Amino acid sequence: MGIIVVKIGGGLDLDHDAIADDIAGMWQEGQQLVVVHGGAELTNQVAEALGHPPRFVTSVSGYVSRRTDRRALEIFEMVYCGQLNKGWVERFQRRGVNAVGLSGLDGRLWEGPRKKAIRIVENGRKMVLRDDYTGKVERVDTALLTTLLEGGYLPVLTPPAISYDGEALNVDGDRAAAMTAQAMRAEALVILSGVPGLLADFPDESSLIRRIQSDEIEDFMSVAEGRMKKKVMGAGEALRGGVGRVIFADGRVREPVRRALSGEGTVIG
Amino acid sequence: MGIIVVKIGGGLDLDHDAIADDIAGMWQEGQQLVVVHGGAELTNQVAEALGHPPRFVTSVSGYVSRRTDRRALEIFEMVYCGQLNKGWVERFQRRGVNAVGLSGLDGRLWEGPRKKAIRIVENGRKMVLRDDYTGKVERVDTALLTTLLEGGYLPVLTPPAISYDGEALNVDGDRAAAMTAQAMRAEALVILSGVPGLLADFPDESSLIRRIQSDEIEDFMSVAEGRMKKKVMGAGEALRGGVGRVIFADGRVREPVRRALSGEGTVIG
Repeated sequence: MGIIVVKIGGGLDLDHDAIADDIAGMWQEGQQLVVVHGGAELTNQVAEALGHPPRFVTSVSGYVSRRTDRRALEIFEMVYCGQLNKGWVERFQRRGVNAVGLSGLDGRLWEGPRKKAIRIVENGRKMVLRDDYTGKVERVDTALLTTLLEGGYLPVLTPPAISYDGEALNVDGDRAAAMTAQAMRAEALVILSGVPGLLADFPDESSLIRRIQSDEIEDFMSVAEGRMKKKVMGAGEALRGGVGRVIFADGRVREPVRRALSGEGTVIG
Repeated sequence: MGIIVVKIGGGLDLDHDAIADDIAGMWQEGQQLVVVHGGAELTNQVAEALGHPPRFVTSVSGYVSRRTDRRALEIFEMVYCGQLNKGWVERFQRRGVNAVGLSGLDGRLWEGPRKKAIRIVENGRKMVLRDDYTGKVERVDTALLTTLLEGGYLPVLTPPAISYDGEALNVDGDRAAAMTAQAMRAEALVILSGVPGLLADFPDESSLIRRIQSDEIEDFMSVAEGRMKKKVMGAGEALRGGVGRVIFADGRVREPVRRALSGEGTVIG
């Protein structure tokens, strides 16, 4: 029985207790798991409350990402690594699962290059940002994860990652989860969010796409809306890297992980 | 050469870069270390900014502690486990030290009882608080710490701890550090704060007490001012538990840990 990586989205409408119940139940039945969580929505709220409102930039290639100056990075860490990561660890501990929460900085778990210059488009004009702490995960330290799993600890991971120079980096959580699944040769990657899966006609939930073959992924990039683009991209990377299957599933329901594994949601692979 | 536990106080006047330089240098020379840090002052500022100002309560036995309702606990985690813990990990990583930041929740590292009812005195009246998340560390999981140290990772620990029921608990960082030093049979516990050590006539820094014998500690409880009381109490616990010596030292200077170990500050033991 292989490892299952579960990515829990940062939407506020996900059912955190149902997710924790499901993962704890599977873990107690002997399933090896690695959890990765997000936190975008709460980060936006806290950044607003602390007087440093979230800003988003669009790259010249059309991707939207969070503007991460040093203060935004601190707030990001407060929410992702503080309130949310410790909230998930506590939720698992209360269910008898010995969770350990880590960011990608810890033990250089998620390492990659910092984008030293980000080319963006703002009001139709091209600009270059040089003080942004954004990057992507290229390497996953499986030694630390394996040590934790062998010791009976459930790893609960969250951005930021770390640059090759040792700086904290805002990275996309879905793609970090995909890299983790790949490095751990996971049997499956389950990506939970506030929709039932990939929708052919967003936001019409009845337009759920049930099945995508590995070699058809590129065809679905155009269907993917907003943040879904990075999830589809991550799915492609994970499958090419040897992950058995990737499932986009609903994080608002009871037993969301087991339902995903039994074929609900969008199954890719 | 035994392990050294360094507690870094949560005062904003400590020299974070000097502390990180010193610990990184010692680590790279082969010294085994465990770092514990606080965060009280920044937590007060963030709690204020988020509209949930810090409150402090005085127990009937005269100890002052942070009022930790559920919202205060979240803010506490944001600052201690988010901004500060990841800030320290990043600072060490930038110096080439493979740090791993953990709270006492992670892996049930710091376990103890929650105070279900706290008897306090407010405006001369006695009251009982039942929704407070405060407790103390009774057990330290040395297995996880030893695994990390053997793997070449520097553990960087911070409150909260975890209750026997799996709840996050605000605990005193100095006493948690003392319990950790004891459990790890540390050679020394160095407690860095914004004063040169224990002062006979606080805040007169020229009144530094240079040396206290183990069996004299109780005599110095009356000299200890405010937060120093818990540090002296922790020192006594650590020494009784087998720690070689405890040193209260200045965290505002260059090479603060090496200076402490060479005899600056207040050496107890």
